[in-house]
Amino acid sequence: MLNERHPIPVSEAVQRVMAYKKTGEIEYVALTDAHQRVLAEDLLADHDVPIFDRSPYDGYALQSASTKQAKEESPVVLEVIGHIGAGSVHNEAIASDQAVRIMTGAPIPRGADAVIMLEDTETFERNGKNYVSIKKQLQYHQNISFKGEDVEKGTSLVKKGTVINPGIIALLATFGYAKVPVARKPVIGVIATGSELLEVDQLLEPGKIRNSNAYMIISQIERAGAIPKYYGQLEDDLEQSVQKISKVIEEVDFFITTGGVSVGDFDLLPEIYQRLEGKVLFNKVAMRPGSVTTVTATDEILLFGLSGNPSACYVGFELFTKPVIDAFLAKEVVGMKQMQATLAVDFPKANPFDRFVRGVYEIEDGELIARPAGKDKSNMVHSLASANCLIQLTGGVAGYKQGDHVTIHLL
Amino acid sequence: MLNERHPIPVSEAVQRVMAYKKTGEIEYVALTDAHQRVLAEDLLADHDVPIFDRSPYDGYALQSASTKQAKEESPVVLEVIGHIGAGSVHNEAIASDQAVRIMTGAPIPRGADAVIMLEDTETFERNGKNYVSIKKQLQYHQNISFKGEDVEKGTSLVKKGTVINPGIIALLATFGYAKVPVARKPVIGVIATGSELLEVDQLLEPGKIRNSNAYMIISQIERAGAIPKYYGQLEDDLEQSVQKISKVIEEVDFFITTGGVSVGDFDLLPEIYQRLEGKVLFNKVAMRPGSVTTVTATDEILLFGLSGNPSACYVGFELFTKPVIDAFLAKEVVGMKQMQATLAVDFPKANPFDRFVRGVYEIEDGELIARPAGKDKSNMVHSLASANCLIQLTGGVAGYKQGDHVTIHLL
Repeated sequence: MLNERHPIPVSEAVQRVMAYKKTGEIEYVALTDAHQRVLAEDLLADHDVPIFDRSPYDGYALQSASTKQAKEESPVVLEVIGHIGAGSVHNEAIASDQAVRIMTGAPIPRGADAVIMLEDTETFERNGKNYVSIKKQLQYHQNISFKGEDVEKGTSLVKKGTVINPGIIALLATFGYAKVPVARKPVIGVIATGSELLEVDQLLEPGKIRNSNAYMIISQIERAGAIPKYYGQLEDDLEQSVQKISKVIEEVDFFITTGGVSVGDFDLLPEIYQRLEGKVLFNKVAMRPGSVTTVTATDEILLFGLSGNPSACYVGFELFTKPVIDAFLAKEVVGMKQMQATLAVDFPKANPFDRFVRGVYEIEDGELIARPAGKDKSNMVHSLASANCLIQLTGGVAGYKQGDHVTIHLL
Repeated sequence: MLNERHPIPVSEAVQRVMAYKKTGEIEYVALTDAHQRVLAEDLLADHDVPIFDRSPYDGYALQSASTKQAKEESPVVLEVIGHIGAGSVHNEAIASDQAVRIMTGAPIPRGADAVIMLEDTETFERNGKNYVSIKKQLQYHQNISFKGEDVEKGTSLVKKGTVINPGIIALLATFGYAKVPVARKPVIGVIATGSELLEVDQLLEPGKIRNSNAYMIISQIERAGAIPKYYGQLEDDLEQSVQKISKVIEEVDFFITTGGVSVGDFDLLPEIYQRLEGKVLFNKVAMRPGSVTTVTATDEILLFGLSGNPSACYVGFELFTKPVIDAFLAKEVVGMKQMQATLAVDFPKANPFDRFVRGVYEIEDGELIARPAGKDKSNMVHSLASANCLIQLTGGVAGYKQGDHVTIHLL
């Protein structure tokens, strides 16, 4: 079954996967747990901002008309009848010969229609009363932040699908979201295959290597905002494996296997997929690394058969699994963010397939430059550690030169 | 005490804070919990990669000398004496008339010194024995990945202070780090002050606003890789407040208050600092917003007195608290990453102080462009939601024009 393979373009492969996307439910979390979650409903202002007419400065609230005669040489004098601190309210109305000391952010008292800044005033006491002396005329409504001036009640401030950051947390707090509607994180099952694999805590044996793919995928899943669930390695027995995977499918939203998709690999997977009545969406993609990536859909679930080669496994996840996770979370941006960058090195070798080179992008003299991260042997995990993007070298092109423009996919 | 304030430059303020930095201890976490933590020791290769001489291809392992006479018209025929799958070992040595079928990644058997790729061979069976027919000469050591070729045992692969990503997880797994040495996350205490503040779940009252700063700071702390601990609001009583803060200091590594630092604000904080015998490092910084940011050092701890103004609070944390957290984590990069960008708009107004404008940077036509995020009134939290950088407008300059180059600080 796996011997007959017809490579399809990467974009076509992504489309075939995305045809099976599904969106998760909304759940409510405490505001203190909302950081980095995906907002599942538009964030609405539940009140005007400011919520009342307020003073933008430290100063005195008064009637602007009272200052009509104010001049440098003949100040107007008003009686100070109160003091409004932050969080307090002055209940008495202000008359034309009166003023009220007001703090930044405090509500404008009744009767007042302007605020004079503290530095434009002088104060004195006489017969136990306080007075403020004003040398400057004020306009009607001068220095007042009006109710709803910044945000009107009901305004949609942040669109659903946005990842919540500290600024959004501040808005959520301002508008009383003690519980925040967020997208439920999908649970992604992971099973490793490969008789050469040891677990991380096992001693090395001849011919064996430690299982790095499963742990790498687990953290890629976390980075994508989903919940990984690791089921260990697959048994070398068909019946046991079918049972295990049938159980996993009921517990997770998506399911990833690493290894077992190359020709000559441990070959239970195709048989298992058949037993599950899965439809193979593709088993060959016109890309390097990761051409053997296989995605299968059953009635319930998408099964991502990623390569056992670490780089191919990594790239396969970011290209095919991450968009499905983004869609599940109803994110604004689905899949890796793409940008245009300038190549810092030559890639003289032409390739019939698209290449995804683990790369590092930087801004140099205001220009976006991309270069390969370390050695780019597909069996080397070393370069994955420093990569912050995948450089796409489109297939069928007669090599690339330094200075060429390429698409990079941000990790 | 707070009335006499002498503004100092931002860089000087950061230096004064960093003079009190301390580094946290190392702790060990399971590999599956290591994503996004800071590596606390260099990651060393505990074995060569490859760990044994292995085959980079599917094919046949053989003695290169056996192929000396191989030609298109007269192939050399070798007996296939075994099959080495991934994870298995062939124990018998290969003689000159023999070959062994070998899978990608499998160890080269004794006696063999080259591998021929599967596509360059043909096979047949005769008298119950398997043979491979070879038309191509092979060089000594052709197609062998040698032990230690990629990474030599003992090589330092990732420097301590690096944030752990999925690629580093793969390396940690490969080299048997079942437990990973990471920097302990500092615990940061948060207390809000301000008699105008309601908690997020309280109904609005005249003159009051909801406390957004504490929740915002909590998620900024999380984003910086530390652990927030919220202690609610400060009582309006000196003795109670001193007791509360004395208790907090024993439980946390650093301590943040929001509000209570402006002239005319709730003014217990200076008195509390005095009672704790704190040394005020500064109480005025030549910056907007956040000029009233006050940092105090006691024998045990740094106390960050951030402004009650949301934007000033936000900026104060990123400029002064984050570098101390980075240093505690022994991170490679301390403080916000800085880049040069091109301004997309004019800022005609000169300012004696440095301004930190909440901004959005983007790559446009390969150029790094920065523009303000939404409205930039310092009382507006709205723009914090979309900001991904702070645009620094150096004080004392006669305004900025579109196209000018400025420093941006990445969030």
